[in-house]
Amino acid sequence: MNTSRSATTATTAFSNSHRDRSDADLAALLFAEIAAFSADSAGVSRPAFSDMETRTLKYLEAFALEQGLKVAYDAGQNAVFSLPQDAGAKDYVLVGSHVDSVPNGGNFDGLAGVIAGLICLVRAKRNAVRFSRPVKVIAMRGEESAWFGPCYIASKALLGILGTDELQSKHKDDGKDLDAHMDALGIDMKRVREKTPLLDPASIHAYIELHIEQGPLLVEKDLPAAVVSGIRGNIRYRKIRCIGEAGHSGAVPRAYRKDPVLAMADLLTRLDESWLTILQKGEDLVLTCGMVATDPAKHALTRIPDLVDFSIDIRSQSAEALDEMRELLRQEIDTVARERKVRFELDAEIYTPPALCDAAMVADLSAAMSRVDQEPFVMPSGGGHDAAVFANEGIASAMIFVRNRNGSHNPQEAMEISDLMAGTDIIYEYLKGPST
Amino acid sequence: MNTSRSATTATTAFSNSHRDRSDADLAALLFAEIAAFSADSAGVSRPAFSDMETRTLKYLEAFALEQGLKVAYDAGQNAVFSLPQDAGAKDYVLVGSHVDSVPNGGNFDGLAGVIAGLICLVRAKRNAVRFSRPVKVIAMRGEESAWFGPCYIASKALLGILGTDELQSKHKDDGKDLDAHMDALGIDMKRVREKTPLLDPASIHAYIELHIEQGPLLVEKDLPAAVVSGIRGNIRYRKIRCIGEAGHSGAVPRAYRKDPVLAMADLLTRLDESWLTILQKGEDLVLTCGMVATDPAKHALTRIPDLVDFSIDIRSQSAEALDEMRELLRQEIDTVARERKVRFELDAEIYTPPALCDAAMVADLSAAMSRVDQEPFVMPSGGGHDAAVFANEGIASAMIFVRNRNGSHNPQEAMEISDLMAGTDIIYEYLKGPST
Repeated sequence: MNTSRSATTATTAFSNSHRDRSDADLAALLFAEIAAFSADSAGVSRPAFSDMETRTLKYLEAFALEQGLKVAYDAGQNAVFSLPQDAGAKDYVLVGSHVDSVPNGGNFDGLAGVIAGLICLVRAKRNAVRFSRPVKVIAMRGEESAWFGPCYIASKALLGILGTDELQSKHKDDGKDLDAHMDALGIDMKRVREKTPLLDPASIHAYIELHIEQGPLLVEKDLPAAVVSGIRGNIRYRKIRCIGEAGHSGAVPRAYRKDPVLAMADLLTRLDESWLTILQKGEDLVLTCGMVATDPAKHALTRIPDLVDFSIDIRSQSAEALDEMRELLRQEIDTVARERKVRFELDAEIYTPPALCDAAMVADLSAAMSRVDQEPFVMPSGGGHDAAVFANEGIASAMIFVRNRNGSHNPQEAMEISDLMAGTDIIYEYLKGPST
Repeated sequence: MNTSRSATTATTAFSNSHRDRSDADLAALLFAEIAAFSADSAGVSRPAFSDMETRTLKYLEAFALEQGLKVAYDAGQNAVFSLPQDAGAKDYVLVGSHVDSVPNGGNFDGLAGVIAGLICLVRAKRNAVRFSRPVKVIAMRGEESAWFGPCYIASKALLGILGTDELQSKHKDDGKDLDAHMDALGIDMKRVREKTPLLDPASIHAYIELHIEQGPLLVEKDLPAAVVSGIRGNIRYRKIRCIGEAGHSGAVPRAYRKDPVLAMADLLTRLDESWLTILQKGEDLVLTCGMVATDPAKHALTRIPDLVDFSIDIRSQSAEALDEMRELLRQEIDTVARERKVRFELDAEIYTPPALCDAAMVADLSAAMSRVDQEPFVMPSGGGHDAAVFANEGIASAMIFVRNRNGSHNPQEAMEISDLMAGTDIIYEYLKGPST
């Protein structure tokens, strides 16, 4: 990565002026320039709490200043943008997302939400539109878990809930802890460590985050954007080990086998059938076994393996559905273990509660969709987002998804700028409020 | 491995004489001495067509000579033992097995059958018993596939059916081909390459092989030995790849998934259910998936994997049951692929036909069991053995299994000498024939 090029260069570029460009062209320019300076061997790499992240914020600052917006940095060293008249507002709608990326990631995960917010401010400034309530746009730092392990770091710090354990987590490359990395950027670590919010949560009237969809639903439905109903929580087991008994593949009769692979297959098939039943009851659920492995040092074509390891990730918008699946998993494990004479060892469950979007905001955003001639469509978010942190701290929160091909967290993320503009239109219309 | 100690040392040891020892003590001594000179970092290693294998034969030669037996080497450089009067017999019962082992293997797989045969000869010599027909005991070379890839090499060469491709297979360590290794030992490679039998198959009245059981049935049944009904053939796929589509574990709804792991689980569960049905019809079948893996370079807790690889090993004594399972596998693969929007890629099927033991010999060996006060018990062999090569070449063949804990091909093989004696008693009684 080339990090020598300074934000000043970008400022100069803006001074040559793009004031006459369309919103879409401005957005495309921002994506292109940021991708250029954060390019990695594949895709982009904007590490959480890094100089590259700071450089991205400075680049956006230069753009915002050139567009006549105000820029401030909060105690978490996140950049906060506003129309000049709203810079001091104490009751505002906060629009934003994060600017960091995973290593060798795509350019749109996070950044799209920041740019959508900025375009709303630019458009309001250009059209001399007053929003129904003051608006601030936040470009947050580290959200991705890929760098330190914990996720939603900047939003948790902002709201005073970043854990002491999380602060001690080590950077994947340099081994220095998160606390040290944050401290080096001038973040007010005394307040972070004391779990004192870095802003007044009561001043945030509502939080809105636009994000690329990480699944295929909008592509399949041929829709540019959607309102998000809630963010799925999850139950995860990184490693479930099924332990049976090794044996000769030809010499052990069925009745004497303790086959862990057939036991795992049985368990997964049972869970899969229950998943279908739960969906048919109208509940929200997804279930994934992302990793499976017999032991490569010991396994063989002609040997019943002694064990197999596999992961489980169960997600739902409904805490009740997650509880139901946890109970079902336990029951099915007991049944399979008994019937197949194997045992299961589960590592610690990782639980993230679901976060429902604010119902009134979902309704108002759906209404805004109609006003900008889009077919209202509401869908769950499968991935986690900063919005879940705000929602679970009692702040009315909502999200807009934008159509995107090829998932996220990879260089093949493919969001069309026209789709981003459709999502931006919804937020802009919502911020203006219905004509009275 | 210490290979400097010569067979002469062993001869000297025998000259100090163990003539007064019991059969059990003699067998235990042979196992202990051979284990001592073929010991490896764990267990024993007696590579196929190696100097260590030759040394093992020379050691057995020294023992046999000291016991007053005759020893010859056939054109395959296998050692052939007999009572003095039977050395020139042209119509004989052949008793034997192999002396090679897998790397870091157990001491009993193969060697037990050779020692059982030798003990029969020693006992007949001591008791001046005449067998009902001349008997030769063969200590064969390479049977294990671990060294070159092909298995049953020495018996295939003896019967003139060792393949040209097999001769070109490379040693796992030195990369030299099997042909070169066999040639270096003085084996008549001209005849082997021409597929001319190294002995006259018509002179073998019957072939009998004792082997440790590689499964737990005799342990579970609390029986020291059994007559083998047949040797299971098998259908193997080293790698079946199920290809789906990668995606975010939380963001892709069920209807849009192409999940290869749940598809594999579905397929294995279907095969498992069919297995049970086939057993309930009274057919012989075992089914194993020994290796499973998602791609460690790409898989993750939170990602639907794009593919999963797994192996299948299906065995039966019945060629019809194998054909039935092959057809069922194809049908289920088609169904799962269609229902789950995945596809399966199968590598080449490896097929080994089953070999039935000679029915008259099974009956006669069962009768011999009764005469030596053992409860007659007949069971299939799950593993392949040299006996299958003889049987499939039209030579009446049969096997005796001896109880053994912990399977085979590992240092934990655990055969009791008293159980070997029980198996040896059956063969000895069979060779003597019923009193008339």
